[in-house]
Amino acid sequence: MEGFTVPVEVSARHLHVTEETFHILFGAEANLSIEKNISQPNQFIAKERVKVIGPKGSFSSVGIVGPYRAYTQLELAKSDARHIGVDAALTVSGTEVENTVPVTLEGPLGSVTIHKDVIIAARHLHCDPATAAKYGLKHLDKVKARITGPRGLAFDQVVVRAREGKDALALHLDTDEGNAAGVEPGTTAELILEDISDVPQPELTLD
Amino acid sequence: MEGFTVPVEVSARHLHVTEETFHILFGAEANLSIEKNISQPNQFIAKERVKVIGPKGSFSSVGIVGPYRAYTQLELAKSDARHIGVDAALTVSGTEVENTVPVTLEGPLGSVTIHKDVIIAARHLHCDPATAAKYGLKHLDKVKARITGPRGLAFDQVVVRAREGKDALALHLDTDEGNAAGVEPGTTAELILEDISDVPQPELTLD
Repeated sequence: MEGFTVPVEVSARHLHVTEETFHILFGAEANLSIEKNISQPNQFIAKERVKVIGPKGSFSSVGIVGPYRAYTQLELAKSDARHIGVDAALTVSGTEVENTVPVTLEGPLGSVTIHKDVIIAARHLHCDPATAAKYGLKHLDKVKARITGPRGLAFDQVVVRAREGKDALALHLDTDEGNAAGVEPGTTAELILEDISDVPQPELTLD
Repeated sequence: MEGFTVPVEVSARHLHVTEETFHILFGAEANLSIEKNISQPNQFIAKERVKVIGPKGSFSSVGIVGPYRAYTQLELAKSDARHIGVDAALTVSGTEVENTVPVTLEGPLGSVTIHKDVIIAARHLHCDPATAAKYGLKHLDKVKARITGPRGLAFDQVVVRAREGKDALALHLDTDEGNAAGVEPGTTAELILEDISDVPQPELTLD
């Protein structure tokens, strides 16, 4: 079968918010507004920014990926988590986890302290189900992905996300992973479809 | 041949300094003092700390790896470089490179502004020459190294450093790479010795 080349996107630290949380931070009359659409269907980076405060540090301007979610979740890289002093769990976006320490989200009109759902997003491949099926893959499978170049490497443990109308082709890494692999604008990855049986299965709760 | 398992060590941002630079920062009578020996022969982390200032940010307390070097060099992770606003080159420790922007090193008694030798250290395997020879490796070869676990991956482009009396067995990664691979205390890597011919050769100047 032909090679399976995918665009690589690096997700900076960001928030997902419920409408309720958003209203506390930005006011009852406010609504998420679109700054820029992203590669995934109907998803966008909002104009609004939030200050995120942990026990050891803070980030003054964290973006929100909308639309509203059924949960409020903060996605950090491991280096971010260390910087603010949070022990974030490695898991798949959307999974509920307990935090060991609370994190405060501060907007212009209010703040919320969250005791759960601060995570490090497990690396994942978004893919429309038809393309996934063409390569023998389905939602929640695991694959490997190789990036070549001066910092080349092959990621194991790439979780496939292939839901109708929800996923469009892109390998999503966090900033630590993007830095480690030397990802730049236009970087692509090659999916490694053979020989995935030896990939150790992590303890991930998958939605 | 049996598997080749190596300890993994993550190098945080650090400095190497000439004696002259050290005296400017800490005074003409001062000398590097040992806080802790590290895995490599005769190498240590010094008690002295330096403030590192770039155009976009600073780090208040950067360690020095001694003894004195013939050059003053700052080794950063990519995330560090971005934080302080420096475009550091990926290369092997000890290589001379030009900086695009100057960086200031500030000690208690003086400061030095450097216009070169701010680098991102290429991932590398320190190995005593006898062990390297046992596995058919020599100084400046390239190998792959796999780390298993929830963030498992296989690094290409691992530069072998095998100099008599200078290198002791350890895979050295920077903090971005350590985070991306989920490295924790006690993590080991498995060297992949077969099939290295397809590893793309980066543009590295090697000493």
